[in-house]
Amino acid sequence: MHEPYNVALIGCGTVGGGVAKLLLEQPQRLAARAGRPLVLKRVVVKHPDRERGVAIPRHLLTTDLKVVRDDPSIHVAVEVVGGVDWARQAILDLLAAGKDVVTANKALLAQHGGEIFDAGRRHGRAIAFEASVAGGIPIIAALCQSLAANQIQSLQAILNGTSNFILTGMSECGRSYEEALADAQKRGYAEADPTLDVDGTDAAHKLAILVQIAFGMAVPVTAIPRRGIAHVQQADIRFGHELGYTIKSLAEAWVHDNRLSLHVSPVMLRHLTPLAQVRDAYNAIYVVGDAVGNTLYYGRGAGQMPTASAVVADIIDMAVGRAQRTFQTLRLWSGNHESLTIQPAESVRTRFYLRLSVSDRPGVMADVTRVLANHHISIASIIQHEALEEHEGDTVPLVIMTHTVPTGSFTAAVADIDRLACVTAPSVYYPVED
Amino acid sequence: MHEPYNVALIGCGTVGGGVAKLLLEQPQRLAARAGRPLVLKRVVVKHPDRERGVAIPRHLLTTDLKVVRDDPSIHVAVEVVGGVDWARQAILDLLAAGKDVVTANKALLAQHGGEIFDAGRRHGRAIAFEASVAGGIPIIAALCQSLAANQIQSLQAILNGTSNFILTGMSECGRSYEEALADAQKRGYAEADPTLDVDGTDAAHKLAILVQIAFGMAVPVTAIPRRGIAHVQQADIRFGHELGYTIKSLAEAWVHDNRLSLHVSPVMLRHLTPLAQVRDAYNAIYVVGDAVGNTLYYGRGAGQMPTASAVVADIIDMAVGRAQRTFQTLRLWSGNHESLTIQPAESVRTRFYLRLSVSDRPGVMADVTRVLANHHISIASIIQHEALEEHEGDTVPLVIMTHTVPTGSFTAAVADIDRLACVTAPSVYYPVED
Repeated sequence: MHEPYNVALIGCGTVGGGVAKLLLEQPQRLAARAGRPLVLKRVVVKHPDRERGVAIPRHLLTTDLKVVRDDPSIHVAVEVVGGVDWARQAILDLLAAGKDVVTANKALLAQHGGEIFDAGRRHGRAIAFEASVAGGIPIIAALCQSLAANQIQSLQAILNGTSNFILTGMSECGRSYEEALADAQKRGYAEADPTLDVDGTDAAHKLAILVQIAFGMAVPVTAIPRRGIAHVQQADIRFGHELGYTIKSLAEAWVHDNRLSLHVSPVMLRHLTPLAQVRDAYNAIYVVGDAVGNTLYYGRGAGQMPTASAVVADIIDMAVGRAQRTFQTLRLWSGNHESLTIQPAESVRTRFYLRLSVSDRPGVMADVTRVLANHHISIASIIQHEALEEHEGDTVPLVIMTHTVPTGSFTAAVADIDRLACVTAPSVYYPVED
Repeated sequence: MHEPYNVALIGCGTVGGGVAKLLLEQPQRLAARAGRPLVLKRVVVKHPDRERGVAIPRHLLTTDLKVVRDDPSIHVAVEVVGGVDWARQAILDLLAAGKDVVTANKALLAQHGGEIFDAGRRHGRAIAFEASVAGGIPIIAALCQSLAANQIQSLQAILNGTSNFILTGMSECGRSYEEALADAQKRGYAEADPTLDVDGTDAAHKLAILVQIAFGMAVPVTAIPRRGIAHVQQADIRFGHELGYTIKSLAEAWVHDNRLSLHVSPVMLRHLTPLAQVRDAYNAIYVVGDAVGNTLYYGRGAGQMPTASAVVADIIDMAVGRAQRTFQTLRLWSGNHESLTIQPAESVRTRFYLRLSVSDRPGVMADVTRVLANHHISIASIIQHEALEEHEGDTVPLVIMTHTVPTGSFTAAVADIDRLACVTAPSVYYPVED
């Protein structure tokens, strides 16, 4: 057995507590997998006296990051604090002090990956970050190692468990968005303020990290078009079912003709596709490579022990010496490697689901289809359910599925349609995928 | 850029041709991922003049393994010959000559893993084998690295694409086994002699490899109980549908109370479970770990480029230096690490689907349920469809779902039932899982 590998935890909230639990309660198992004992030497916390659900010896706790920074026996620092500003400075200090770093911090990498990875290279240290995307799903290892022979062609992912839990509740139990959100909050799948989860920001952070690995591009999070799920309605879920589709919030990136398209959006996904089957708070990533073809990785994207599983895998990779070699070889966030440009959102071509609210009277269909024709948008199918005759004049839904069209033409057509006298409320639309 | 990493291919059939294609046609891509150029230095083949669908320079071809063995510039030998005897000796020779080895040979590892891994350790060389199980799915990397913090609790896997393609055709198109097999052969998913695929042998080889990694046990392939799919009938697929189940050929291993249960068998799997959704020739592995929870890995389990993708990932892992560290650390096939024993098949507890062929006359149900009661087998549900009165006395199917029972009690009961006068043909049964 080789010399012990010494670990410091920076932060000890939910994920940190899970990491401490594995290190303290499974020393033999982890030593066997790492080829040497993993020793928890230090835990940096704000409140040493807080109850943590895991018995951390009092002498390991400190409130001072310098204690870790200045301890030459510590090999790796594990940042599980979250947040951007303090964590960024802490990691830069730790790298400068000669520590390798494991982090689960998606927002930090998505916003400051370049600075942090440059610092790692400058100081000859390594950074591992499996837990930053999709918790217990080893998607970082898959993209960095297992699929290394491939040019990745597309990523289609469910990266936010909260959104997926809410949409599953709406789809399977007929709940409204508000009811499904309340259920997610009750079960601990959504925060009291769920904004970053349901508006697509969290998924966009994760997508930016995956895009860096898969396509070698540093895409600013602000450059990723994103739509949240807060406006998804039961009507669209029901019409989707009728047409054979399920609404999922997807983070997607794909390359065509050296152009990278990407977005986070609710998407109508055909029922029998693998991602359409991903339920509740689970995450999944569907990756297409030019050699391997279609692959899928599925598991829990959050939660204490699934995320801790990924963090400890990174610690083991560091102790074994694999993570350092991966870090040195791949040179992530060291400039854009591929000769790709970003496809402007308006020229991305896709099919659309469109639901109009129209007055039930003669001429409506002619007006609407005339606008679509003017924008060269071809109709694949239409649903208009029969209304009772005495309700003529009431507002009824009209659902149109288009053929593949440029997004810009489509949204221009929708703007024109929404100005028609017969249209009584803003139209609702989602991309459609098979 | 570091010095080139020199590769020899041993064998150049379907998979070898795919590996050669990637090495020869994507040199820049692979060099970027490996941190150094990967150079194809030699290809050992039986017939140098055979057409291979990839333009291998004539001077690289040789029929003599010694040319590779005695070339000190070659770093890694890639065994894609298949078969056991010649490949075993070739790998032992190559390890002794100081070459690291990448192999896709499941039968070889399942039968001689101990001997080959011992030789690797003795000579200070490394062996990588991602392509030996489930082709393009990185399940070996997942178990060796990404899930290293976990005690694996269970593996449930679709590991034979041929069997899954046949069962999908039977389930979705109403084909008989023979029709679905003929279709698989026509499309190249089944060999002219499909025996090893459809009788469970191929899946048992792969399961033995996964069990070695996940549970540290060297289980002889002959000790894995296995049933093939050749006797699966449309009647059982239809009754399964009616009850909410799909028949899949699963390779499974799970631990309970320090006992390892394992088998390869057609299983009735509840419709909405992730594995039940895996269609056609795809493979998937459902892994439950004590920290990570439920995870799934899905992709093509065979075929030229998916398998070549896994082989080249191993070559890159060798060139980067990760594979050597994994090999040295994990000490696979170096004796049984865990204090597990194998659960005898007859004491494995599961639910069963049982279809009887019985004469449609009074007293049958009483006779059958009496036998089950004598063996303490509790009935969860029964299907007996109404037969036309004028057909009284004809043979009709009677389907029984049991509660969880020991397999030995169940098979003893079936033997007794099949001796009843009212039973007109041997009963059919499959395990049932959720």
